[in-house]
Amino acid sequence: MRTLAILGSTGSIGRSALAVVDAHPSRLRVAALAAGDNATLLVEQAARYRPAMVALASGEAAARFRAAGGNAAALVCGPEGLVAVATHPDVDIVLCASSGTAALDAVLAAIEAGKTIALANKEVLVMAGALVMNAARRKGVAILPVDSEHNAIHQCLHGRRVGEIRRLILTASGGPFRDLTLEQLQAVGPDAALRHPTWQMGRKITIDSATLMNKGLEVIEAHWLFDVPADAIDVVVHPQSIVHSMVELNDGSVIAQLGVTDMRLPIQYACSYPERWDAALPRLDLAKAGRLEFHEPALDRFPCLALAYRALREGGAAPVVLNAANEVAVASFLEGRLGFTSIPVVIERTLNAHQGQSVFTLELIRQVDAWARERAGDFAGELELMG
Amino acid sequence: MRTLAILGSTGSIGRSALAVVDAHPSRLRVAALAAGDNATLLVEQAARYRPAMVALASGEAAARFRAAGGNAAALVCGPEGLVAVATHPDVDIVLCASSGTAALDAVLAAIEAGKTIALANKEVLVMAGALVMNAARRKGVAILPVDSEHNAIHQCLHGRRVGEIRRLILTASGGPFRDLTLEQLQAVGPDAALRHPTWQMGRKITIDSATLMNKGLEVIEAHWLFDVPADAIDVVVHPQSIVHSMVELNDGSVIAQLGVTDMRLPIQYACSYPERWDAALPRLDLAKAGRLEFHEPALDRFPCLALAYRALREGGAAPVVLNAANEVAVASFLEGRLGFTSIPVVIERTLNAHQGQSVFTLELIRQVDAWARERAGDFAGELELMG
Repeated sequence: MRTLAILGSTGSIGRSALAVVDAHPSRLRVAALAAGDNATLLVEQAARYRPAMVALASGEAAARFRAAGGNAAALVCGPEGLVAVATHPDVDIVLCASSGTAALDAVLAAIEAGKTIALANKEVLVMAGALVMNAARRKGVAILPVDSEHNAIHQCLHGRRVGEIRRLILTASGGPFRDLTLEQLQAVGPDAALRHPTWQMGRKITIDSATLMNKGLEVIEAHWLFDVPADAIDVVVHPQSIVHSMVELNDGSVIAQLGVTDMRLPIQYACSYPERWDAALPRLDLAKAGRLEFHEPALDRFPCLALAYRALREGGAAPVVLNAANEVAVASFLEGRLGFTSIPVVIERTLNAHQGQSVFTLELIRQVDAWARERAGDFAGELELMG
Repeated sequence: MRTLAILGSTGSIGRSALAVVDAHPSRLRVAALAAGDNATLLVEQAARYRPAMVALASGEAAARFRAAGGNAAALVCGPEGLVAVATHPDVDIVLCASSGTAALDAVLAAIEAGKTIALANKEVLVMAGALVMNAARRKGVAILPVDSEHNAIHQCLHGRRVGEIRRLILTASGGPFRDLTLEQLQAVGPDAALRHPTWQMGRKITIDSATLMNKGLEVIEAHWLFDVPADAIDVVVHPQSIVHSMVELNDGSVIAQLGVTDMRLPIQYACSYPERWDAALPRLDLAKAGRLEFHEPALDRFPCLALAYRALREGGAAPVVLNAANEVAVASFLEGRLGFTSIPVVIERTLNAHQGQSVFTLELIRQVDAWARERAGDFAGELELMG
């Protein structure tokens, strides 16, 4: 029996994780749950899974949990609450599926507590890849990626040594605008950008998918997860999202992982590793799919991907700056204040304004993050006035 | 340094194997070579690689080898010569690339001598799968497949346990006639059938590829190599031959091996296993390939595939009968005496005429083989008279 803490249990990944628990009652048990603001759903989840501890992001949300008859052996809140869930002594595996930077402290604390990490949060590695991976190595803790691309690469590698890897090939759906011209991209508004062709996702990640920044952040994550340099990580556009990613080995052989687009598969993989459990999930029928297409990403029309490579090559705090500036620019775009093609402009100007520096501590990371958000806000404001 | 015996060194696979040796002079050395009739090329190969022993199929060919100035520490001939090469004390790995049934004795002798087997011969496992795999298990000898499909599956499995495998998915180019109607297939002659769209191969295997019998024989081989039942081996047509085969695991995840169609890759894999050596082979560019297509094989138009499944399910000597009848029918077709769509008719009638029996010894296998060839010859003769 493996016990699970789910950070972000009321979100899309969190709910898929609970479906995985439902499918394997003799193998997985929920030990702790953490949600953000959705007290109502957490009340239901707590009644059903009876975790030893539940957390909500704020005292106000915790009060709503109680008012709605929420029952839990322990109820905690705030960032400390998230850490308490992630380090709870009953927990073996921490599934980090809460978005944003709040999870960073919790993941680092979980690593220190020796928990296995199933990681579905991008910011953790983009902002603090060196810190997190060094801590995991020091504590002998596994970081198992849940993101479908990195999960695919983990499956393809299956214990192969770094020396056997020539390059990683991340697939990208290409987003809803992959065939638009630069002129058409300039006219794109939030509504069009929120319609993603394959995956159902949150608003922020859907825009990141449309700009290819999502893939850029994944390139940075892949660097940290698999210890492979930027030059050995390629991206290929694959609109059908059936090949989840690939690895080219040093003899030229390419190993790929394919499957239906169902997050239960990578979540179960991370929870079961190194075992692999039978699952009655939808099966891939390639003959029915019929056709898989591949083409090069258009870096001229989607400069966010190139900016992510640039930040990874610059190293140090540059990925922190990239991530913060992107969040600010996307928020501004979603509010209808910034044009779609101005998103990379804000990010590039913020990267240009940044003085290269190393980030050895969480405190420094937070300082750079705050600085970049402020500068990106300024650049976004200037571009709004121009628009 | 690993030392190699190549059975079939003057054929297409044998020459590719020597190219692999050329690329890895510090890792691979040729210890012995066996050819069929091509004494001229064997003279060149012997001069270049200086093997401790060379073999030719006949005393006549051996005489031509000597007459042409062929030089070798030891020159042997006939079936005993092939066995001597395969069991030579200097040899670590026996690459069995000679076609047909002659290699069967040599492979069994090599297994008894504790050699690693790199197998590029279909008949060995189709005719004597149980004998060969039992012997290999008993002696602790690895059978490494060189056929691109089985090699792909070996790469996909990469040490995964049988219990994790839900099914194997062999890809098939579909042959040159995959889009023809049954009426058009009836009019196909040997010349059209010998034009294969992707792989350059011998005459017999090219026809087998056009009838899908090649894929059927591969299904039988896969059963023996990977210990998976017929129901867990599927075939999908994939005209581009870039995905070389796949494995569906018990959670629904599919692992695929992709690459350019170059036999040096699977040969090197078999010679280097469990290592994987860097190689300057042509690299796969998926964006350039652009599109991969998949569809179900048309069993109504290509009944040879269904016949192979039937023979595998019947077990015992049925695959021996299938293989022998197919060889006779294909030879008859290549001579212009039998129609393309009569090939499966000959095989089916021979299978129907066969009384199910077990084949525990090489002697029994040879008896069934001889019986099936005679009966298939009769059936082919009848169909010729009718045509």
